[in-house]
Amino acid sequence: MVDGYLEEYFGFDVLPAVLRESMFYSISAGGKRIRPVLALASYEALGGSPQEILRYACALELIHTYSLIHDDLPAMDDDDLRRGKPTNHKVYGEAVAILAGDGLLTEAFHMLSVPENGIGADRLLKAIEDVSMRAGLWGMVAGQVQDILAEAKGSGDMKDPEHMIKFIHEHKTAQLLAASVRIGGILAGASHLDLDALTVYGRAIGIAFQVMDDILDIKGQTALMGKTAGSDSRKEKLTYPGVFGLQRAEAEARQLVESAIASVGAFGAKAEPLAAIARYIIDRDR
Amino acid sequence: MVDGYLEEYFGFDVLPAVLRESMFYSISAGGKRIRPVLALASYEALGGSPQEILRYACALELIHTYSLIHDDLPAMDDDDLRRGKPTNHKVYGEAVAILAGDGLLTEAFHMLSVPENGIGADRLLKAIEDVSMRAGLWGMVAGQVQDILAEAKGSGDMKDPEHMIKFIHEHKTAQLLAASVRIGGILAGASHLDLDALTVYGRAIGIAFQVMDDILDIKGQTALMGKTAGSDSRKEKLTYPGVFGLQRAEAEARQLVESAIASVGAFGAKAEPLAAIARYIIDRDR
Repeated sequence: MVDGYLEEYFGFDVLPAVLRESMFYSISAGGKRIRPVLALASYEALGGSPQEILRYACALELIHTYSLIHDDLPAMDDDDLRRGKPTNHKVYGEAVAILAGDGLLTEAFHMLSVPENGIGADRLLKAIEDVSMRAGLWGMVAGQVQDILAEAKGSGDMKDPEHMIKFIHEHKTAQLLAASVRIGGILAGASHLDLDALTVYGRAIGIAFQVMDDILDIKGQTALMGKTAGSDSRKEKLTYPGVFGLQRAEAEARQLVESAIASVGAFGAKAEPLAAIARYIIDRDR
Repeated sequence: MVDGYLEEYFGFDVLPAVLRESMFYSISAGGKRIRPVLALASYEALGGSPQEILRYACALELIHTYSLIHDDLPAMDDDDLRRGKPTNHKVYGEAVAILAGDGLLTEAFHMLSVPENGIGADRLLKAIEDVSMRAGLWGMVAGQVQDILAEAKGSGDMKDPEHMIKFIHEHKTAQLLAASVRIGGILAGASHLDLDALTVYGRAIGIAFQVMDDILDIKGQTALMGKTAGSDSRKEKLTYPGVFGLQRAEAEARQLVESAIASVGAFGAKAEPLAAIARYIIDRDR
């Protein structure tokens, strides 16, 4: 559903053509589409029909994709490959890549601002408030800045690496995943209690997701993940298993997933997709 | 009003501190605040009290500032100075500058998504729809991409430089200025007819503004504008007076300002601030 919608959405005829091409290049480069799927599953857990919010769920993929394009830039992680394909700036140049990212981020908010399928302005505005907070200064962007500062320092030269890695995972990854789950709830008109349960779920799987990413990295499956294996900048990278040890990291990821599944238990059978996504996070091999 | 609000707004305590510092460095670097002022003047023209929408007007300055930070990057215009101060990436490094821009853009939508002073969700959502379109793929970002493509080509090597420079000014500058004026109207609940008049005004002064910028550039007052005078990348730059001649460019800017003032004439005395801004655009000397 998500792939189909995104392909159709980017069929528009924007000028200059290279802007559309560069955005679509990264949007269509694959990926697990975990953020839109979380929004759809969360909306479904509250009794909604996923198709109704497909447009808004896909906005999250635009935000995720913009963050990858900017993250790969020479000034940031300096990656040449992403998901086995040359990164955006390798194909279109740095200037267009920066602007493709800016365009995707701006367009994400445009997608969220157009009412359809009877979703009211009140709910859409709350969704925009939530995602702009968690994708921005109180979430993803703050996590990215901290990640860069940590990388510049090197993990051996840090006062409190345990606190640092938790801050980075929480902000860089978990907040946007939490926003994805919450948006499904907000658009369905969830009560505060239900929204709290979804938030606990979202943050828990968000942190578990990033810890598992680090673990899979360390287990040497980097290439399969579509990351360059030998990127120099990653050598000293602060990771959860690097700080806490592989065994403890794996145990904590499993514990987080258990608590995530428990927190959406009250939604009953309708929350089975959310539980399945949580289990997938620790059982995936890439 | 705008300076005061922005200073207070950026008093928050976001972590890491360098993120707040880098954003505030560029936000507080001065500038004419023309976009927020346009929104306030437009709201006033429709009978509103400007103070009520100050938060939303200031969101436009965040969008403008993010675009300047990204525009100054080495991969883009590669400018070392902006408004007489070192550019953001010269002070904080490229990575933080990219993220400060991302943060400002995301936070702008956050500012627009929080209802206050009785402005309803319907109007705020329409404002977000409008600004996300005109700041993004159908406006500023598209104009930036075209500007870069034009610069790479050089103005002498172009099929239709007249069409090209008009496309760039319309998209890179005029659309966000139009959005600024329109937002004042949208938040005041303007009729379609009134919104059309504001749009004509906004696009006209937007193009006049950029044409006058080019003219002032050519008249050698670059240093006063806070731009580096001898930046290599600007030598072959496509400009309106470069394509149409200085005399015709000045005449057209004056004509545009006249038509802008005429189009808001129906609002009567309440539109005097809009008319004053329009006159300022051609009478300013920097």
